[in-house]
Amino acid sequence: MKIGLVGLGLIGGCLGLDLRASGHSIYGVARRKETCAQALAAKVVDEASIELASLQACDVVFVCTPIAKIVPMVRQLAQVLPPEAVITDVGSVKGSIVEAATQEWSRFVGGHPMSGKSEAGIEAAERHLFQGNSYVITPLEEANNAARLKTDGGAIKIIEQLAGELDSVLYHCSPADHDRAVAWISHLPVMVSANLIRSAVNEPNDTVRQLAQHLASSGFRDTSRVGGGNPELGLMMAQYNRDEILRSLRYYQQEITALIEHIEAEDWPRLAATLAETKKARPQFVEN
Amino acid sequence: MKIGLVGLGLIGGCLGLDLRASGHSIYGVARRKETCAQALAAKVVDEASIELASLQACDVVFVCTPIAKIVPMVRQLAQVLPPEAVITDVGSVKGSIVEAATQEWSRFVGGHPMSGKSEAGIEAAERHLFQGNSYVITPLEEANNAARLKTDGGAIKIIEQLAGELDSVLYHCSPADHDRAVAWISHLPVMVSANLIRSAVNEPNDTVRQLAQHLASSGFRDTSRVGGGNPELGLMMAQYNRDEILRSLRYYQQEITALIEHIEAEDWPRLAATLAETKKARPQFVEN
Repeated sequence: MKIGLVGLGLIGGCLGLDLRASGHSIYGVARRKETCAQALAAKVVDEASIELASLQACDVVFVCTPIAKIVPMVRQLAQVLPPEAVITDVGSVKGSIVEAATQEWSRFVGGHPMSGKSEAGIEAAERHLFQGNSYVITPLEEANNAARLKTDGGAIKIIEQLAGELDSVLYHCSPADHDRAVAWISHLPVMVSANLIRSAVNEPNDTVRQLAQHLASSGFRDTSRVGGGNPELGLMMAQYNRDEILRSLRYYQQEITALIEHIEAEDWPRLAATLAETKKARPQFVEN
Repeated sequence: MKIGLVGLGLIGGCLGLDLRASGHSIYGVARRKETCAQALAAKVVDEASIELASLQACDVVFVCTPIAKIVPMVRQLAQVLPPEAVITDVGSVKGSIVEAATQEWSRFVGGHPMSGKSEAGIEAAERHLFQGNSYVITPLEEANNAARLKTDGGAIKIIEQLAGELDSVLYHCSPADHDRAVAWISHLPVMVSANLIRSAVNEPNDTVRQLAQHLASSGFRDTSRVGGGNPELGLMMAQYNRDEILRSLRYYQQEITALIEHIEAEDWPRLAATLAETKKARPQFVEN
């Protein structure tokens, strides 16, 4: 297939490397000529341009821009692509994107390859980033959106095929279920973790704060890791998944209040039961 | 020196291995004969017994029991040790221990070697567990305790020497400062992390909860790790460092409320500033 990539950052770069190795012809579009040159040099793409019109012969286009630019980009692509082309995206929220993008382009398929690494940019691109990781496809059904749209079945099959070529583990769900699930396992952890750092660093006693900074080790390291990451990413989650992140934060806050009450009341059997439950529940989410 | 170890679990076992290699004679006491046999077989100790009286010739005794048993054990040791012997402990809270233990034994020194691993018990003991890790000594000064006690300077020097032989990084602080600092970097993370698991697993929609369980990956794994650990340890923190854990949880709760308010108000500049601050603050605690 002729596959277009709009946005040649980490995800676009990794898609290019794997799909090119899989035998497809890859056409990249970036905002800057320097990125196009980097992509060609790194063999991420066969051709690269700063012009969207360079994608006019593509069968499939992956929009790999920041979330805010996905729907506007689909609108622009609609001016240059042939009507049978499939457009998909890689955004980490779906509710605010899939319906709007499908109104711009009927053969749009919402997608979320759940892979990443701490480095950003095309220079961090590598083979097999998606291997063994989840790739969520979020088709619209008439019943799950206000505009009664339904994602094209043939278009879904094409994205499923490509996700299979990446050796990803495929999941299908509604955009709303996706956003609620990632609020729990991806967005809430960022807020919880950031709030831990913020609380500790605001210790007013200098001696205690400096001691805490010296003594912090693996427990603090792990719990604070995602909260100390890219602030733009955290902001984006809150902006584009606002309702779900608020829902999960409010529930989390209630549970913190309950925890404080148990400790205040010295209700140790209750606290012991809570901690035993969390130990038992964690393996339902992650292995180790 | 003749060094006694009361409690032959992970920490007692590791102390025995390193201090024995350092040339000391190690006398172990465990509750069960099987543990004594294991300790002898693993060369953790030179002699092992279920009788405290076996420690009567020791220069230094490390109390490596669970926190609740430290002060009662010091009281029992006071019946068998020579008056010049030094007693120290390895408990992870200090305020509730050091003053009471010093009233039982004037040459008591509070200590907290901040090392651990996920496995427990003497069979997990290994050399060099303490190497490069913090070892906090928490002497009493007349000004920092109600009973106007002062930890014996000669006793402190002996524990400093032994901590040095373990290649630990030494810190000195008051028991109160220790407990406040570890509340931030060790105890609060456990509660924050446990509460994340508890919140996510209580998602009432089965489809969403199962999807979250499938999609959880490194972010959730890291943020939930210490909350999914040994429930007895979490309970012990809350029981023995209750005031400080409540203080840190209440502050954390206020900050969660502020975070919710920023997101509700769509105050994105404020949220962006908060997340930028946490990114900047994290390296003051941990390197990566």
